[in-house]
Amino acid sequence: MPGFATTWRRRASLAAGLGICLVASAVSHPVWSQGAVPPGLAQIIAAAPPEAWRSIDPENTLYLTIPQGRVVIELAPAFAPAHVANIKRLVRAGFFDGLFVVRAQDNYVVQWGDADSKHPAGGGELRLKAEFDRPFATSDSFVPLPDPDTYAPQVGFAGDFPAARDPAKGLTWLTHCYGMVGAGRDADADSGGGPELYAVIGQAPRQLDRNVTLVGRVIEGMDIFSALPRGHGEIGFYQTQAEKIPIQSVKIAADLPAAQRTSFQVLRTDSPTFAALIQNRRFRHDDWYKTAAGHIDVCNVPLPVRTVGK
Amino acid sequence: MPGFATTWRRRASLAAGLGICLVASAVSHPVWSQGAVPPGLAQIIAAAPPEAWRSIDPENTLYLTIPQGRVVIELAPAFAPAHVANIKRLVRAGFFDGLFVVRAQDNYVVQWGDADSKHPAGGGELRLKAEFDRPFATSDSFVPLPDPDTYAPQVGFAGDFPAARDPAKGLTWLTHCYGMVGAGRDADADSGGGPELYAVIGQAPRQLDRNVTLVGRVIEGMDIFSALPRGHGEIGFYQTQAEKIPIQSVKIAADLPAAQRTSFQVLRTDSPTFAALIQNRRFRHDDWYKTAAGHIDVCNVPLPVRTVGK
Repeated sequence: MPGFATTWRRRASLAAGLGICLVASAVSHPVWSQGAVPPGLAQIIAAAPPEAWRSIDPENTLYLTIPQGRVVIELAPAFAPAHVANIKRLVRAGFFDGLFVVRAQDNYVVQWGDADSKHPAGGGELRLKAEFDRPFATSDSFVPLPDPDTYAPQVGFAGDFPAARDPAKGLTWLTHCYGMVGAGRDADADSGGGPELYAVIGQAPRQLDRNVTLVGRVIEGMDIFSALPRGHGEIGFYQTQAEKIPIQSVKIAADLPAAQRTSFQVLRTDSPTFAALIQNRRFRHDDWYKTAAGHIDVCNVPLPVRTVGK
Repeated sequence: MPGFATTWRRRASLAAGLGICLVASAVSHPVWSQGAVPPGLAQIIAAAPPEAWRSIDPENTLYLTIPQGRVVIELAPAFAPAHVANIKRLVRAGFFDGLFVVRAQDNYVVQWGDADSKHPAGGGELRLKAEFDRPFATSDSFVPLPDPDTYAPQVGFAGDFPAARDPAKGLTWLTHCYGMVGAGRDADADSGGGPELYAVIGQAPRQLDRNVTLVGRVIEGMDIFSALPRGHGEIGFYQTQAEKIPIQSVKIAADLPAAQRTSFQVLRTDSPTFAALIQNRRFRHDDWYKTAAGHIDVCNVPLPVRTVGK
């Protein structure tokens, strides 16, 4: 019964049984389901101690609801404090409710909101100073990858987000991987702010790094975003009002009654479990993989997310 | 009017007016629409002389028709001669007609066909020896990229496909970029052959390089493939027959009357035009881009395709 379908179908059952959501990477490759060596991804994650998981702050969690379902975003205030604070003000003012997903460009981005909206901004701003990068301290947590990166001197993970650093310049920034969320802007670097947001749905457009303010990443619902019909206007804009996807609501999890929240946890990238995960992904060699890559791209590293409780 | 939507909408008009299809990359970024320097992508392509374009051989062109539309694939016999010959035998036997797209895994692959099908194989094989890589001669055309790659000693373009080389081992192979098409297999390296095929719809899963036989790339219709509803079974398999996407037909362009064919041309990657394109993409610095990446990933380089005639 040839076809890797078969192999993967059989082996994936272990990972699936854990109820773990693996976001922002190709993560359902074959893993060892028996035997002693080497440990597979599912086993590594299953063996993670409780302290390897970080609960995502409901204050930094957005629920974006469209007819296709719910998309959940974790905001990144450590990298974009002003943008994140502003987006939360806009959300709390109901700015996004009733606006639309206006663009779906294949292998690139979906985009929603409207900087020209007359919706109340509730004290929020429509333009902010760019937060493309920031200085880092040597004491900052940064989990580097050992492999060369095409775009940056150093890549890895900061605050459990994919990130890059330039030690010579003392700067760090988030990287445009699949599922990352950014603030659209006009030609002026300081013309973003959050009323228009986008999410990456294709090959990492790393040339956007340090050119747009990244504000977070999708932790649930990328399968919804990325399967939206592509727009047929220029650069993927929907051409008719009927094509646009209505935003039913955007909410901050902390503002909802506890019973309506989902508790998410992300695997800490500074945990020994994550270090084992990286090594496992770099050296995949099992009865399906014949040649281990021996390397991994920062945008191919799975960042496991799980829900707890109900 | 902040939001990069605005900028892009205005500027993209030039590229759109050319009727050029830019496949396998994020290609609709801002380009210069006026002024002398630096030349933008659309201008570079528009200025390409006729000899910079290669007509795609109808004998190596597949039309795959599903209810959502037509997907066109250019086969790569230079890299996978046995697989390509076998796929053409299967196509000509009507093997794929009436089968299904059976899997759509987010940020990974869509997959179609069925190695267990009882459809006539017309002398085609259901299993073939792997064609993961092949020796290269120093006389082989290879257009290298100057930037470091995370996965391979050298990356670039061969036969106008994204490719990699290991000079120490004298081996070359195609790379798993967005839109590349491969032959699914079971655990046995030699269990592929073509009855099950897949296309990459997400971040380049480069760890599959040299582990699966790549047979070509999608040159039209990736927006159709990548927006298919994701499967909710393990690793993205559709769980019910009703979810599967019926393959109405797969045809080789050469077998169709001329009036039913589309004539495609791809920009030659060994042309001066393509060299200019690469440099333009590596150093994007205009009134929108504030920081030029100075680098490019092999899977982010646009491979322009155009249609000629009707």
